[in-house]
Amino acid sequence: MAGGLLGTDVVTQIGIIVRDIEKTSQAFADFFGVEKPKWFLTDTIDKTQATYRGEPCYGRAKLAFFKLGNLDIELIEPDEHPSTWREFLDQHGEGVHHIAFVIQGMQEKITLLAGRDMPLVQKGEYTGGRYAYIDTVPQLKVAIELLEND
Amino acid sequence: MAGGLLGTDVVTQIGIIVRDIEKTSQAFADFFGVEKPKWFLTDTIDKTQATYRGEPCYGRAKLAFFKLGNLDIELIEPDEHPSTWREFLDQHGEGVHHIAFVIQGMQEKITLLAGRDMPLVQKGEYTGGRYAYIDTVPQLKVAIELLEND
Repeated sequence: MAGGLLGTDVVTQIGIIVRDIEKTSQAFADFFGVEKPKWFLTDTIDKTQATYRGEPCYGRAKLAFFKLGNLDIELIEPDEHPSTWREFLDQHGEGVHHIAFVIQGMQEKITLLAGRDMPLVQKGEYTGGRYAYIDTVPQLKVAIELLEND
Repeated sequence: MAGGLLGTDVVTQIGIIVRDIEKTSQAFADFFGVEKPKWFLTDTIDKTQATYRGEPCYGRAKLAFFKLGNLDIELIEPDEHPSTWREFLDQHGEGVHHIAFVIQGMQEKITLLAGRDMPLVQKGEYTGGRYAYIDTVPQLKVAIELLEND
């Protein structure tokens, strides 16, 4: 049984920051022999109630998902407003931004991780659930995204 | 059925470059509530027959593996000699270096991908199989590792 801080050890998603979601989506579609998925824009802040480093997060992103055999690849093209996605692109360029886990009890997990020096960076609501990015980079060398679905 | 260039869409491994494999292994062990695995050193070139950018590869690395629910996390601490691992650490610092797929027919895959402007960067033998790193970064924004087990 999976223990640990998250209560799960299944990686549900690998998130990759890109500059051009159309171009990179086409490359992934060609590589894996699937249809290019349509990207969609994350919701506005009135719906997401998103925060980034404790402030309202007006940053949005284009997202596209590829369902691979055992997890999803999420492509993320940030807009120009501040967000964890924009920050990563500015600091590191394109590349793997996070690995995601489906958890239960979002606030409890955020509090637990913060107590281990793994602070919340950004969180928000989406239709049917919510997400939180945790800064686990000093410890794990990659950020973790928590996903909770209702 | 999984098609595409690899003949598989199952991500078997996420490879992360680290500076201190002891410290990062302990962090992963604590995070996932498991024992810290022992790291081991990759074999010498007489066993690996490794090449890096077409030249003999004397670069070696300490490796540690965490078996998560649906894939492995591989931690990689490069030594000072040239390798794809050392190059990544020097250029990007710590972080996700590759995602790996188990394939069949290594040389055919390498040739197929090279024909799509996805060149071989490094390859080598290990006990029971062989690996190849492919530079898919321009297209996919992450490198791909091919693994073939006998």
